[in-house]
Amino acid sequence: MAYNVVKRLDIVLIGAGNLATNLGKELYKKGYKISQVYSRTESSARQLANILSSAYTTSLDELANTADLYIVSLKDSAFIDLVPAITHGREKALFVHTAGSIPLEIWHQSPIARYGVLYPMQTFSKECEVEFKNIPFFIEAGRKEDLYFLKDLAGELSTHVYEINSEQRKHLHLAAVFACNFTNHMYALAATIVDQYQLPFEILLPLIEETVRKVHYLGPQMAQTGPAVRYDQNVINNHLELLKNDSIMQEIYEKLSKSIYQMKLKEQ
Amino acid sequence: MAYNVVKRLDIVLIGAGNLATNLGKELYKKGYKISQVYSRTESSARQLANILSSAYTTSLDELANTADLYIVSLKDSAFIDLVPAITHGREKALFVHTAGSIPLEIWHQSPIARYGVLYPMQTFSKECEVEFKNIPFFIEAGRKEDLYFLKDLAGELSTHVYEINSEQRKHLHLAAVFACNFTNHMYALAATIVDQYQLPFEILLPLIEETVRKVHYLGPQMAQTGPAVRYDQNVINNHLELLKNDSIMQEIYEKLSKSIYQMKLKEQ
Repeated sequence: MAYNVVKRLDIVLIGAGNLATNLGKELYKKGYKISQVYSRTESSARQLANILSSAYTTSLDELANTADLYIVSLKDSAFIDLVPAITHGREKALFVHTAGSIPLEIWHQSPIARYGVLYPMQTFSKECEVEFKNIPFFIEAGRKEDLYFLKDLAGELSTHVYEINSEQRKHLHLAAVFACNFTNHMYALAATIVDQYQLPFEILLPLIEETVRKVHYLGPQMAQTGPAVRYDQNVINNHLELLKNDSIMQEIYEKLSKSIYQMKLKEQ
Repeated sequence: MAYNVVKRLDIVLIGAGNLATNLGKELYKKGYKISQVYSRTESSARQLANILSSAYTTSLDELANTADLYIVSLKDSAFIDLVPAITHGREKALFVHTAGSIPLEIWHQSPIARYGVLYPMQTFSKECEVEFKNIPFFIEAGRKEDLYFLKDLAGELSTHVYEINSEQRKHLHLAAVFACNFTNHMYALAATIVDQYQLPFEILLPLIEETVRKVHYLGPQMAQTGPAVRYDQNVINNHLELLKNDSIMQEIYEKLSKSIYQMKLKEQ
């Protein structure tokens, strides 16, 4: 994308959560102009606007009308309700949302002709800066020109840009919940166990790192180890006994062990 | 440990699975002499013995009697049954097992006086070499001298050696199942989802890597993201709908999402 195009582009961010914050900061770093940030929560709007040297508002009535690109990063349920209000009177602009879970067709609920999706598949926290160039971006658009534009824009941020449809993206997002959110929860559950025995969580880090390293070489099915895959009923029963005072963890342990063993049987 | 002590030490490996293979190879690399490998499965015994330039047997009747150190790495249930047979007539030797889940007291079922535990907490696959120096080793022994010896031995392999009791180790092993085995299964479930939509598993790797990187900075509770922790019922319901033809994955999704949200409520 030519430098002058970048400089001229007027972007509004709708949402100031984890994803909006990280994406906004990266766009700003690359020289893009974010003219306004909208969030219902004033502290979030102000905080992000400060970082991006932009204006902010907590009222949709004050949402800028003249931006070229509106990037919408809202909680899914809020977003669906707000589509008419945020698009109305801005029919010339390009609207994109950043959600893995929401189809392109969401924009059909509005009169706009230029719309798309810009989904960076990553786990974003406000407290943690992330290297954008390795993040896979998944794009989709109603019109070819806008697709090319999004390809260029995403290509400025990352070296991994893919065009996929809404059906694929929806399942990719589901896979991401398993690979990231649920994985992180496994770490959190492990942390609660070691905490109770005065062992630091850090003691688990070499194991966690090796688990990730291995999956690169072997893939997840070959890499599976532990009592469930060897069907070591003795260890499994002892572990279930250790968890007897925590019915949620006990059920999780049981379900996951069964699922591991069933997957192994299917492979054979 | 002085070089001549290392050279004189005569080690027998009982077991030729993933852990025994990796530990045996590392000991061999450091100059230790493994004189014999026992495994019920001939191909496993032969394969490991070849690598370690040692003898092998598939019969406990042929187990060497004169070794200084017997390292037992068997599936838990098999091990418990074999304790009398492997220790009988070898009362002067030091016996250690490598299992996180088995208490030191297992050795009380035998007449031996020198026994201990040498538990390297790591996920081992025969196909994957692992850097031993970062692996935490957890040791325990019946006698002080043997504890010092195990500290030296483990210290030759790793820079992280900890003395913990059987109760702590049992829970640590449980935590390791969550942090490693269940985590890897999350990757495997994610892989089955993307496979169905002609997307390569590799597309998930940057997300998986970032999830691990973040846990180092933020710890697992702060690092949690995704629909469950924000209680985005809309996304959760859509995901459950996508999983309607796989009742196991659907149950796992539901249980883990509830557990994530409940953990968040407890923190507040």
